[in-house]
Amino acid sequence: MKNQHSGQPAPFPEEGRPAIYPVGDVHTEAGGVVLDAAIAVQRWGELRIASDGSTNIILVEHALTGDSDAVTWWKGLIGPGLSLDTNRFCVMCTNALGGYSGSTGPSSPHPDGRPWGSRFPALSIRDLVTAERQLLDVLGIGSVAAVIGGSMGGARTLEWTLMHPERVRSAAVLAVSARASAWQIGIQSAQISAITNDPEWLNGDYHSSDGYPHEGLAAARRIAHLTYRGEQELDERFGTDAQKGENPLGEYRDPEQRFAVQSYLDHQAEKLVERFDAGSYVTLTEALNRHDIGRGRGGLNRALSEIRVPTLVTGVDTDILYPYHQQEHISRNVGELLGMAKIVSPVGHDAFLTETRQVARVLRRFLLLAADADGETSG
Amino acid sequence: MKNQHSGQPAPFPEEGRPAIYPVGDVHTEAGGVVLDAAIAVQRWGELRIASDGSTNIILVEHALTGDSDAVTWWKGLIGPGLSLDTNRFCVMCTNALGGYSGSTGPSSPHPDGRPWGSRFPALSIRDLVTAERQLLDVLGIGSVAAVIGGSMGGARTLEWTLMHPERVRSAAVLAVSARASAWQIGIQSAQISAITNDPEWLNGDYHSSDGYPHEGLAAARRIAHLTYRGEQELDERFGTDAQKGENPLGEYRDPEQRFAVQSYLDHQAEKLVERFDAGSYVTLTEALNRHDIGRGRGGLNRALSEIRVPTLVTGVDTDILYPYHQQEHISRNVGELLGMAKIVSPVGHDAFLTETRQVARVLRRFLLLAADADGETSG
Repeated sequence: MKNQHSGQPAPFPEEGRPAIYPVGDVHTEAGGVVLDAAIAVQRWGELRIASDGSTNIILVEHALTGDSDAVTWWKGLIGPGLSLDTNRFCVMCTNALGGYSGSTGPSSPHPDGRPWGSRFPALSIRDLVTAERQLLDVLGIGSVAAVIGGSMGGARTLEWTLMHPERVRSAAVLAVSARASAWQIGIQSAQISAITNDPEWLNGDYHSSDGYPHEGLAAARRIAHLTYRGEQELDERFGTDAQKGENPLGEYRDPEQRFAVQSYLDHQAEKLVERFDAGSYVTLTEALNRHDIGRGRGGLNRALSEIRVPTLVTGVDTDILYPYHQQEHISRNVGELLGMAKIVSPVGHDAFLTETRQVARVLRRFLLLAADADGETSG
Repeated sequence: MKNQHSGQPAPFPEEGRPAIYPVGDVHTEAGGVVLDAAIAVQRWGELRIASDGSTNIILVEHALTGDSDAVTWWKGLIGPGLSLDTNRFCVMCTNALGGYSGSTGPSSPHPDGRPWGSRFPALSIRDLVTAERQLLDVLGIGSVAAVIGGSMGGARTLEWTLMHPERVRSAAVLAVSARASAWQIGIQSAQISAITNDPEWLNGDYHSSDGYPHEGLAAARRIAHLTYRGEQELDERFGTDAQKGENPLGEYRDPEQRFAVQSYLDHQAEKLVERFDAGSYVTLTEALNRHDIGRGRGGLNRALSEIRVPTLVTGVDTDILYPYHQQEHISRNVGELLGMAKIVSPVGHDAFLTETRQVARVLRRFLLLAADADGETSG
C-alpha cells in the first residue's frame, strides 16, 4: 500500500486518547518490509502550527517495554504547569514499531490474517524512527519543537537528530549511548536466548499455538531488571532477607523457597509477562543490539559531530546498563551540545523514570536552553 | 563412616600431584549429610611443622569453577621465589566440596553406587570450609600460616577466620563481600534457573540419563562471564563488531549470525561446559547465594568485628559483581585489619585472577604484614 501522506493529513488524535494510524509499508534498514504498518499515538495539549510549518510538539520516546501513555510512565512530568507543560506544548508519544501497545509488531495480524510471528523482520533503531516519521507525514506535521527520550527512547532521539534534522528543533537524550556496547549486546542476547530457548517459543510462531514462552520472557525480564536497578538500592531493600514465609536456607535447594529479592524479581517478571509480548521483547531488544549511530556514517564520533540539532545529554551516576561515561562520550562529541546533566540516585538506570524531581529540573532547563538556541537560530 | 582423623595422619600428598582423601561424612549447616566425602588437594613446597603444631602452609581457596591446580589458575604467583614462595611455604589448594575436580559433588557416586544428583544436599560456604577442615584433620595439620582466596575463595577465607580462628594465623580476602548482596543473589539465581529450566536437567538427575543440560549451563556461564568482566574492557575488545564471516544485521534475526562479543561469550561457555558439571555449578552458586558471615553471629558487622585473625582485604575498582565498596565495608569493620589494597584494572572482577603483577605485590605485602603481626603476637 502507498504511504498515507500523499493525501490530506489524517485527523489529529483526541486529547489523551490512544489512536492508531496506518502509516503504510515500513522498509527496514536491512531490506525487510513491514507491510501496512500501524502506529499508536497519544497526545496532551493543543497543537499549534507556525507559519513556517513548525509545531509546538514535543515528541516523547518510550523505553523498551513502554507505550504511548507517557503521562503514566513519566508521571509528574507531563501536564499543565509541569516540565513538559501541556499549556504550552503538544506532548506526543507513539508506541514503537515492533511493540505491543497498538503499533504493528510480531503479534499483530499480517495482511494475510495470520500473526506476523517469525515473518516479522528484524528492526533497527532507525526503523523505529522511520515508522514514527511516517506517522508525522500522515498527520501532516512538519517539524517538532523537541524529541526527548531515555534508554531505547534516547537511542531513537539520537537517530532522529541524524535521520531527519530538518524536523527536530532540539533533542534531550537520557541514559543511553551512541551505540550498543559489547556488554549490552551480551546481556541483551542472554535475554533473547532465554526466550528463544523456551520450548513454547516455536521460532516466534507461538501466537498461533496454545502455548506461550512465559518462562523465557520471565527469565529475560529478571535479568533485565538487574541491569535497570542499582545494586546498592536493591541491597538496601532486600539484602539476604528470606521472602516472608519461605526458607531459602533449607537442606535442599528449593525454587519455592526464595530470598526476598527473588520474589521481587519474580513479581517484576510476572507483571511484564501479563502486559507484554515475547515477540515484541525479542524484536525491540534486537533493535537495541543494532543501535549504532555510526553505522554508514563514517563511524561514531563523526556521526556525533554531525549532529546539528541542539542536544542536551543526561545520565545516571549509578547506571550499570548505560554507564555515565557513555553519556559523557556523547556530550564530548556531539556537534551541538545544549548541556549536560547528571541524575544522582542509588536507583541505577531506571532513575530516568523514577527520579521525577531531578528529571523535571533537567527537562525544564532543557526547554529553556532549547528556546534560547532556537531564538539565536531564528534571530 | 567415622572421620579419618581419629587415627594416624594420612600420608601427605606428593609435590604438585592431585591426591584425593576421604574426609568422612560432612554434616551441612542446614542439616544435610554428604556421606563418605572425599576432598581433592594439591600442594607445592615442603611442609614444615613447628614445635607448637603450626605449619608453613598457605591454603589457597579457589573461585566458583576453580580446582586444586592453583599454579595453573593463579599462574605466576605460586612457585620458588614468587609471591607465594614455595621455597618458604607449602602452598596447598583443595577442590571445594560440591565441585567437579576430584572432590565429592553431585556427579560423584553416592555410597549406593548411583550418582548423588538431586540427593546432594544444598551447601553453604561454611560447609565447604567444614569439609576442608576435615581434610586438615585427616592430614594431621594444626594451624596454617595463611588462608588466601578471591571471590568464592574469599568467602571461604572469611568463614575460616570465624569458624576456626585457632587454625588460621592470617588471611587475605580478595574481591568478595561479607555476605551475598541482593543483586548477586538475583543474578546468580538467574544462572541457576537457566540450568534448571533446561529440559535435560531432570531435577538434577541427568547424570543417569543420556542427556546433559548443556544449553542451560552455557547460558548460565554467558551471564556469569558478563559479571566477571568489566564492560569497558569488553567494549574495547569487541564493540559492535560482527563475528568474522557472520552478519548480525540481516533482514531477520539469526542466532547463527553473531556479534563478535556473542561469539566470545559462546566460546567461554563452551569451554566451561567441557570442563565442568551443571550440578556442581548449581550447588556452588547456591552456596554463594547463602554466603553471609553474619548468620547466627549477631549480624554482619558484629561478625566482622569478631574476626581476630589478621586480615588483608583487596578489591578491584571496576568489579560489578563484588563492587569495591563491599571490600571497603569489610575493611572498615573487620576486627583485625592488616591492610587494604585496590587492584586498578579495566578487567573487572576477574582482575584478581588476571592482573598478576598487582596481585603479586598485594600478596607479598600481605605476607610481610602477616609475619610482622605474627611476630608481635608470639613476641
